[in-house]
Amino acid sequence: MKTAVPGPKSQELMRQLGEIQNVGAIHFFCNYEESRGNYLVDVDGNRMLDVYTQISSIPIGYNHPALMKVMTNPNNVSAFVNRPALGILPPENFPDKLVESLLTIAPSGMTRVQTMACGSCSNENAFKSMFIWYRNKERGDTNPSAEEIGSCMINQSPGCPDLSILSFMGAFHGRTLGCLATTHSKAIHKLDIPAFDWPIAPFPKLQYPLEEFARENAQEEARCLEEVEDLIMKWRQKGKPVAGIVIEPIQAEGGDNHASPDFFIKLRNIARKHGCAFHVDEVQTGGGATGKFWAHEHWGLDDPADVVSFSKKMLTGGYYHRDELQADKPYRIFNTWMGDPSKNLFLSEVLNVIRRENLLEEVTRSGKALLQGLYALQTQYPHILSRARGQGTFCAIDACDDATRNSIMMKARNKGAFLGSCGERSIRFRPSLIFKEYHVHQLLNILNDVLTEHE
Amino acid sequence: MKTAVPGPKSQELMRQLGEIQNVGAIHFFCNYEESRGNYLVDVDGNRMLDVYTQISSIPIGYNHPALMKVMTNPNNVSAFVNRPALGILPPENFPDKLVESLLTIAPSGMTRVQTMACGSCSNENAFKSMFIWYRNKERGDTNPSAEEIGSCMINQSPGCPDLSILSFMGAFHGRTLGCLATTHSKAIHKLDIPAFDWPIAPFPKLQYPLEEFARENAQEEARCLEEVEDLIMKWRQKGKPVAGIVIEPIQAEGGDNHASPDFFIKLRNIARKHGCAFHVDEVQTGGGATGKFWAHEHWGLDDPADVVSFSKKMLTGGYYHRDELQADKPYRIFNTWMGDPSKNLFLSEVLNVIRRENLLEEVTRSGKALLQGLYALQTQYPHILSRARGQGTFCAIDACDDATRNSIMMKARNKGAFLGSCGERSIRFRPSLIFKEYHVHQLLNILNDVLTEHE
Repeated sequence: MKTAVPGPKSQELMRQLGEIQNVGAIHFFCNYEESRGNYLVDVDGNRMLDVYTQISSIPIGYNHPALMKVMTNPNNVSAFVNRPALGILPPENFPDKLVESLLTIAPSGMTRVQTMACGSCSNENAFKSMFIWYRNKERGDTNPSAEEIGSCMINQSPGCPDLSILSFMGAFHGRTLGCLATTHSKAIHKLDIPAFDWPIAPFPKLQYPLEEFARENAQEEARCLEEVEDLIMKWRQKGKPVAGIVIEPIQAEGGDNHASPDFFIKLRNIARKHGCAFHVDEVQTGGGATGKFWAHEHWGLDDPADVVSFSKKMLTGGYYHRDELQADKPYRIFNTWMGDPSKNLFLSEVLNVIRRENLLEEVTRSGKALLQGLYALQTQYPHILSRARGQGTFCAIDACDDATRNSIMMKARNKGAFLGSCGERSIRFRPSLIFKEYHVHQLLNILNDVLTEHE
Repeated sequence: MKTAVPGPKSQELMRQLGEIQNVGAIHFFCNYEESRGNYLVDVDGNRMLDVYTQISSIPIGYNHPALMKVMTNPNNVSAFVNRPALGILPPENFPDKLVESLLTIAPSGMTRVQTMACGSCSNENAFKSMFIWYRNKERGDTNPSAEEIGSCMINQSPGCPDLSILSFMGAFHGRTLGCLATTHSKAIHKLDIPAFDWPIAPFPKLQYPLEEFARENAQEEARCLEEVEDLIMKWRQKGKPVAGIVIEPIQAEGGDNHASPDFFIKLRNIARKHGCAFHVDEVQTGGGATGKFWAHEHWGLDDPADVVSFSKKMLTGGYYHRDELQADKPYRIFNTWMGDPSKNLFLSEVLNVIRRENLLEEVTRSGKALLQGLYALQTQYPHILSRARGQGTFCAIDACDDATRNSIMMKARNKGAFLGSCGERSIRFRPSLIFKEYHVHQLLNILNDVLTEHE
């Protein structure tokens, strides 16, 4: 480390950018050319172990040689400079590329995939698929009525029906208006933006470590599931039936809140019982950080989800879905770009690297070391730290309050470890998939130094 | 042309992709490597003059050497392989790149710009900016109340207020749930998707050529403006005040519907008078195709718009806005990626080419030739064609009915000219900015052949 972070160069750039944009969320400016693997270099020459990875979106570290090669392969140039309207004029290799990349990692039961540009667009379109599926089911084999066709043009029912998506308190599914109506993590995300009157169920508030509180946690989960069923009935009575349930396998923005496989299996059954689609949002949890490619693969669902959405570490947004969730007509799920084939090229290489280097095993190994280290820290500093939890390297720990959390993160940054926050007082660990045990130890040493000083 | 389009290879690929996605909107598969300039080559070796350019999103043709160079410049590799979370960790050159590219073409009155990944996300976030601005104005200097903070988390007012955006019949502003509530072009876009109860004004139905029907058109525009004011009052009385008005300079998807500068100037004044923000959606019209960089520059507004959104030919999404439309706090307008710096690199080069080759003059010249040619065709085939209209090369003409329109387009395609449709029976012309007069003549010859056969 050469300066405090942000250093003088970052501060000057912040002033410049401040004339064009709100810069209140900027930590510092980066020198991406000099960044390598797990190390992010800032413009003042500070080199930090990156445990946040661009909000969990860098899968195999900075400037990975396999990704650089994609750029220098002359066969790929055209995919970058001629961005197609994929829904009407796909490139020749598009079906092959989907089969080679996204379909090789398709979650169980998912035969179809639609790419999109980002996480919010993926969820918005997944919601639309569920609404269309739900109404087609109600309508049966008949075509939409003239009244539906006419009323939808002016935002009125029955054409624009009063359907809803059930979400959970603490959830984060994106920030566009549809997604935002299912997001309930922080007030600043939602304040002043109109929303739909959709049902919001409590997400289980569990005690950690999960295995020590199995009975209490099971009770809490049962309470939440009961509330889900109540809400589904209430909203049906209100004339706003629940077309789909959306949930994260681990609530990330909302504070790294876990629930048991049993909870999710029962939730899936409730969705089935009430005729609601079941949408698992893997935008943050997907891509390997939990030790499986999809976090929901830890549940052992017999009856697969209906929709699984992704983005971030997948480099392209999109969603998988079952056959019956496919829109029946063209142009119902559509936009100009429908994703970006150049991102699929990078994803293909990322998947090759994950397989070649057994990165899911690496994540499991590093994750164990990380969680054990966090347990040790909270034992050593019980008045500061608590609730260490995680799956793979997708870990978190709570500080005693917001101010302490922020102070720990800032001090860690100045010692060379860059961390992210979530929830009200959690630190979330979101390293890349190439974060090895010695990186874990480097991180734990820095945290230990910070906590010693803090005392 | 070597085969009918789609040829056998396209048909086989459609079958393959059909197992993964709905392929009902696909025209054919492309060989982008072999495509050059204004000519799109398909997988069966057919070479077509492209007058649709990936739904109006290819600015300077296929495989432009200037864009290929961006790919081979080693200084740029890092921007492609390390996609940053721009809102928290921008690259060193980010302020400079914004100043050099997006700000050099900023519409009058616009000092600030926010990049986004696509057109829908641009409009969604522009809407959010307008809602935040409107509520901050109402709130004055005070902070949000505890009631606002609490209620917004569960989608209820006052935290999630019942504000609205006024849009126009025939408008297209995107397909995510917020945008879709302002889109009213085709039923298939909206059917079965819940919507907000927001006001929808009539867009003027003008007679063409505009200059021949000045008096009738002025009356029609006055009628629509009166309706806008009525709706603003009505929705205020309903407790859903209009925070913003969104409009396209030329309604594109909705059928290439024009209005006069006078209409837009008066609409801007109505927005000002009633305290609504004024949002010009230039996603399809922006980027030079009308002969000015922004179509709304043809209006000569004294009082600039509040927000101007873009995407497509700009290669990156985003929106410009006035100072006071900037969100007051960080994380209110935010997402993981906030655009993509690699797209800004391409945009920079596109702008260089536009300036170096005087492409806006080229567009004006080609546009005149195109519109004159369309006038000549509709004079020659008055029972088939009517309502030729346009600005720059952003032109359209109507067929007598939907079936005739589609038949003309299909025959033109088989003769080597690829066209797009819009509205109920319009053909829209959306060539790239390097579409020269001889391309216009090539296109007109093909259309003439098709129409002769059609008789």
